[in-house]
Amino acid sequence: MKVVNIVDAVKRLLIGRALPSEGLHETLLPKRLALPIFASDPLSSVAYATQEILLVLTLGGLAYLHFATWAAVAVVCLLAVVVLSYRQVVYAYPSGGGSYEVVSTNLGPSAGLVVAASLLVDYVMTVAVSVASGVDNIISAVPSLNAYRTGMAIAFVALLATVNLRGVRESGRAFAAPTYLFITGVLIMCATGLFRWLIGDAPVAESAAYGIEPAPGDADLAGLALLMLGLRAFSSGCTALTGVEAISNGVPAFRKPKSQNAATTMGAMGLIAILMFSGITALALISQVHIAEDTCRLTGFTGNCHTTPQRTVIAQLAASVFGGAHSVGFFYIQTATALVLVLAANTAFNGFPLLASILAQHRYLPRQLHTRGDRLAFSNGIVALALVAGALLWAFHASVTNLIHLYILGVFTSFTLSQTGMVRHWNRALRAEPTAARRRHHHTARAINAVGAVVTGLVLVVVLLTKFTQGAYLAVIAAVVLWVMMRGIRRHYDNTAAELAVADPRAETVAPSRVHAVVLVSTLHKPTLRALAYARATRPDVLEALTVAVDRNEAEALKSQWDATGFDTPLKTLASPYREVTRPVVEYVRSIGRTSPRDVISVFIPEYVVGRWWENLLHNQSALWLKSRLLFAPGVMVTSVPWHLSSYERHPHRPSRRAPGSVRRGEPALPPWSRTAGPGSQPERGR
Amino acid sequence: MKVVNIVDAVKRLLIGRALPSEGLHETLLPKRLALPIFASDPLSSVAYATQEILLVLTLGGLAYLHFATWAAVAVVCLLAVVVLSYRQVVYAYPSGGGSYEVVSTNLGPSAGLVVAASLLVDYVMTVAVSVASGVDNIISAVPSLNAYRTGMAIAFVALLATVNLRGVRESGRAFAAPTYLFITGVLIMCATGLFRWLIGDAPVAESAAYGIEPAPGDADLAGLALLMLGLRAFSSGCTALTGVEAISNGVPAFRKPKSQNAATTMGAMGLIAILMFSGITALALISQVHIAEDTCRLTGFTGNCHTTPQRTVIAQLAASVFGGAHSVGFFYIQTATALVLVLAANTAFNGFPLLASILAQHRYLPRQLHTRGDRLAFSNGIVALALVAGALLWAFHASVTNLIHLYILGVFTSFTLSQTGMVRHWNRALRAEPTAARRRHHHTARAINAVGAVVTGLVLVVVLLTKFTQGAYLAVIAAVVLWVMMRGIRRHYDNTAAELAVADPRAETVAPSRVHAVVLVSTLHKPTLRALAYARATRPDVLEALTVAVDRNEAEALKSQWDATGFDTPLKTLASPYREVTRPVVEYVRSIGRTSPRDVISVFIPEYVVGRWWENLLHNQSALWLKSRLLFAPGVMVTSVPWHLSSYERHPHRPSRRAPGSVRRGEPALPPWSRTAGPGSQPERGR
Repeated sequence: MKVVNIVDAVKRLLIGRALPSEGLHETLLPKRLALPIFASDPLSSVAYATQEILLVLTLGGLAYLHFATWAAVAVVCLLAVVVLSYRQVVYAYPSGGGSYEVVSTNLGPSAGLVVAASLLVDYVMTVAVSVASGVDNIISAVPSLNAYRTGMAIAFVALLATVNLRGVRESGRAFAAPTYLFITGVLIMCATGLFRWLIGDAPVAESAAYGIEPAPGDADLAGLALLMLGLRAFSSGCTALTGVEAISNGVPAFRKPKSQNAATTMGAMGLIAILMFSGITALALISQVHIAEDTCRLTGFTGNCHTTPQRTVIAQLAASVFGGAHSVGFFYIQTATALVLVLAANTAFNGFPLLASILAQHRYLPRQLHTRGDRLAFSNGIVALALVAGALLWAFHASVTNLIHLYILGVFTSFTLSQTGMVRHWNRALRAEPTAARRRHHHTARAINAVGAVVTGLVLVVVLLTKFTQGAYLAVIAAVVLWVMMRGIRRHYDNTAAELAVADPRAETVAPSRVHAVVLVSTLHKPTLRALAYARATRPDVLEALTVAVDRNEAEALKSQWDATGFDTPLKTLASPYREVTRPVVEYVRSIGRTSPRDVISVFIPEYVVGRWWENLLHNQSALWLKSRLLFAPGVMVTSVPWHLSSYERHPHRPSRRAPGSVRRGEPALPPWSRTAGPGSQPERGR
Repeated sequence: MKVVNIVDAVKRLLIGRALPSEGLHETLLPKRLALPIFASDPLSSVAYATQEILLVLTLGGLAYLHFATWAAVAVVCLLAVVVLSYRQVVYAYPSGGGSYEVVSTNLGPSAGLVVAASLLVDYVMTVAVSVASGVDNIISAVPSLNAYRTGMAIAFVALLATVNLRGVRESGRAFAAPTYLFITGVLIMCATGLFRWLIGDAPVAESAAYGIEPAPGDADLAGLALLMLGLRAFSSGCTALTGVEAISNGVPAFRKPKSQNAATTMGAMGLIAILMFSGITALALISQVHIAEDTCRLTGFTGNCHTTPQRTVIAQLAASVFGGAHSVGFFYIQTATALVLVLAANTAFNGFPLLASILAQHRYLPRQLHTRGDRLAFSNGIVALALVAGALLWAFHASVTNLIHLYILGVFTSFTLSQTGMVRHWNRALRAEPTAARRRHHHTARAINAVGAVVTGLVLVVVLLTKFTQGAYLAVIAAVVLWVMMRGIRRHYDNTAAELAVADPRAETVAPSRVHAVVLVSTLHKPTLRALAYARATRPDVLEALTVAVDRNEAEALKSQWDATGFDTPLKTLASPYREVTRPVVEYVRSIGRTSPRDVISVFIPEYVVGRWWENLLHNQSALWLKSRLLFAPGVMVTSVPWHLSSYERHPHRPSRRAPGSVRRGEPALPPWSRTAGPGSQPERGR
């Protein structure tokens, strides 16, 4: 079965043909377009970072809300450190390998694999958390949709997967609008709220009037328990850092000077993220947002606490600043937030094939993920990503708070290892560098990365301690499984390569003495004649035609027709008492091999090339099965002689023009005058 | 992707390897074993036929129960007529084509297709109804299982499918025991009950004390409405006739004289079925079984009428005759009934591939269903059958009464058409037959078949009228869809054959002038050397090696290695700016074709033969994709040069020995000394 064609065609049915190029070359990205594409993930995470901090702190009731300030300050400092550290990576490794390349090069391949496994888990979590948060915000705007939370989340994942399977260009312009609208909206909201606070008309959140019962066991904390609460709040807030390294993976996509532009963009991203995060957190404390994980712990809450959720922090802020939950500003903020979160989820669908391609290049994943031509492989990756993310959303009921526990671990593993790798990088550079000025630069850079490594390492420990039992163990298990699998794949490829290696190519070459050609014949029609003609053209030493007498009458008719035609090639008829084709042919071919072991047997099988996928169910099936069985016999090669059915002339296949993630690699689209159109087309015809 | 291997291997995981033959040839069936195999379907349907009659009549309350006698008498007469008619088919068409062959030969292929579509629908319904009834009887024995009714039914279907996928031999002995146990059990039960009635100690059913409210709209019927009720009861009782034609499909499996033995067996089956059905119906009326479709219409019913079902008629009879619902006799009857119903469902899994094979032979279904070698095709049919039956059970909540509405239509369509076809058969025979004695025989046979055709035709109309709106329309739709699809497939094959037909084979043969061989090289290893050697052995006019520079360093290394080895064959390197393999190769091959249109281009691609299915995910993928794209180019043939990896030597493939339905075709199993074991095995080694 031509699985490839059927899969392609099912996809064509589902998602339509790939869009034709607009006729322009894809260009490298200017900074203003690169920012939305690469920074939508970290910028969007400010939508839920503040909320997560507050949700942890309100486990102790209202008493510890003021710690939010300290947690936010710590997150901001961490963000600054990480951004500064990664700017070094951007300059030092402009090929776009990102964390994986840094760690592989400096700490060894096993550590690199740990990063790779963490990043793969991270991509899945990006999709799950972003979509869950987007749905959260949509429900904050339209509360009646709360019953469909999980369904909506899974539907969004399916939509994203479909769009990416279609191969829609990750267009910078499509990303730009929602991202900039989100940024401007949030900044305006924070500015307005702070201004009102300064003039004495502080906005008041809708939940300001509620009290919060502490969660059982979290009341009246002191000492270590209080510290732990603070640390948990901080580690939840660290979700604001997810996606910061995306730019380091995308340096090749920038215009020249690539590293400088990338570093500038990263700095801009860090600044904007800090501004937005600080603004939101400050505003949340000013307007006294009282939000709790379990709505039933709110005192004074009207409505059914089991079915009515609270609005998200951003929603409450927008409502309080812009005049209520039905104002234009409120819906603007919610729409922009939801859109940018969806875009953030989309980055995973584009970044994932990129990472998979690099891993495949190093043979940690199946090799076909490396080359672009196999659209099927990328599509499989997209489908796998969507399935796992969907399963997570279903299992955790699209709860952002529960999903976050799995999210942060992978990110900080990658941070810590890559900063450590950078420190070793600068050590090596220092040993080789004589110039004093550059040595000073290296010292500074190494210091930044060292601080980053230590800080993120501490945070990693904190995150492990605070979140392991709450769900992070799942992420750990997944990463371990991936790590083991990738090592296994690499080991398999290495073993295979060793098995196939040749010491002396000239000595290995044992040429077969003769070629014994066998042409499979079912009826005397055009494909058979072509197969005979092609087989004869190769001038074999022995040429015979072979048919299997599944139906005795048909076999006799064929034999008489063959003799009447007077071919030089003899027709051999195999008996088939069990109504089979494959077994008699394989046995016969094996018998030839036993008689003449130094011959190579060349089996010619006609194969139909069809235009519509379902026609493959009606043809070629027996031929494909037979081919696969024949390849088991030694000394055999199987030749497919195609015949283009008229349905193929009417429905020729057009290869797609774009693979996912190509924008991030800085690859241009194929020009319209590319000569790879379907059959029979003139090369000069444009598409 | 070697889908074939993966599917095989998943199945091996799920269902284990196919069982090896016990070492004996399969023999043709003696009558005593043929009866259980072919008659389990009609004999088992007496388990629910009486029940269905009573369920329809009690829609009018208790007032019309006595009509059951008349309905039963009508069913018995009809059964006798149909059995006599089909004995003619068995003598006239001993090749086992059954209804399909009779109708195709005598009424034309379109009518034959109608029969085929009806039979295909019928197979699905056999599975659904038999399993539902079996579960019904199990629940009658263990009432606490009622909550799992649908789940149990679907589980049974899955079990049957798994067993058949494994290819377990449809052993006559395995069928014999439950069938004969069922027959003897029911006959003993009826005899005991009648005897007790004669001596004045009539058995009393557990539901005898209940009254029944008439269903809304079905009370106080008179005239036409009463007649309709009677007809509905009769048409529900006609379910006792389902499966009668199975023997006519299985004549080749009997020992000689085949037709005579088949006819005798059919007569025996008819007699036993009539005895059992009459006995059960009589006993049901004697013991005053009061059974209603909606248990809430029973007056005096203790227990929750929404969750507690009534016991089946057979269960109530067994309980009343053998002393209660915990007696040995009761559990014996229930066990035997459930077993024989499961076996009846199994007949569909064996009969279906048989019918599909015949249809494929006539090109109404994909051709690979005809030959045995493709286990995959048969397996697909079994899976499809199981899926549709499971879906029906789920949709109708495993309710026998609701499923029966879809069941009977297909059966009586087939009856009517085949009896009509037989009438034409005898007409033709009479025209050709001069002998007076034989003419008398033909006249008698024709009369029997004519009566049969008229009667079954009337019943068909009755069934249509009474059951169309209750669910039979689904069966009609399904049959129509199948009919259209099969005609479409035949038309496609006919069009293709016409397109490919050759008028003058000698004139068509335009031999290519030269062979231009291209060997695809990725690295210089053993498979590459073998591909080169094989290509060189075919002595092409032009031979070149081709590689694609996906990675520039690797390409340069290969080039220098190639030059250092000093091959005669030049190595051509194609650039690949888009990280692809397929497109550059296809473009290059097309360019050769444009330069020399009369050459044939022979592309040699190394292919790995692996032992474990998942290894196919790591190799061959790009090669398979490339092969499929290359076949689109004109004047190209693609040759796979296999290399057996060591994992293949460790895990060689063993072909299976048996296809489902082979017993019914009278096909022997492959003898153990068949030479089709895996690679490297000595032919004399037994399995």
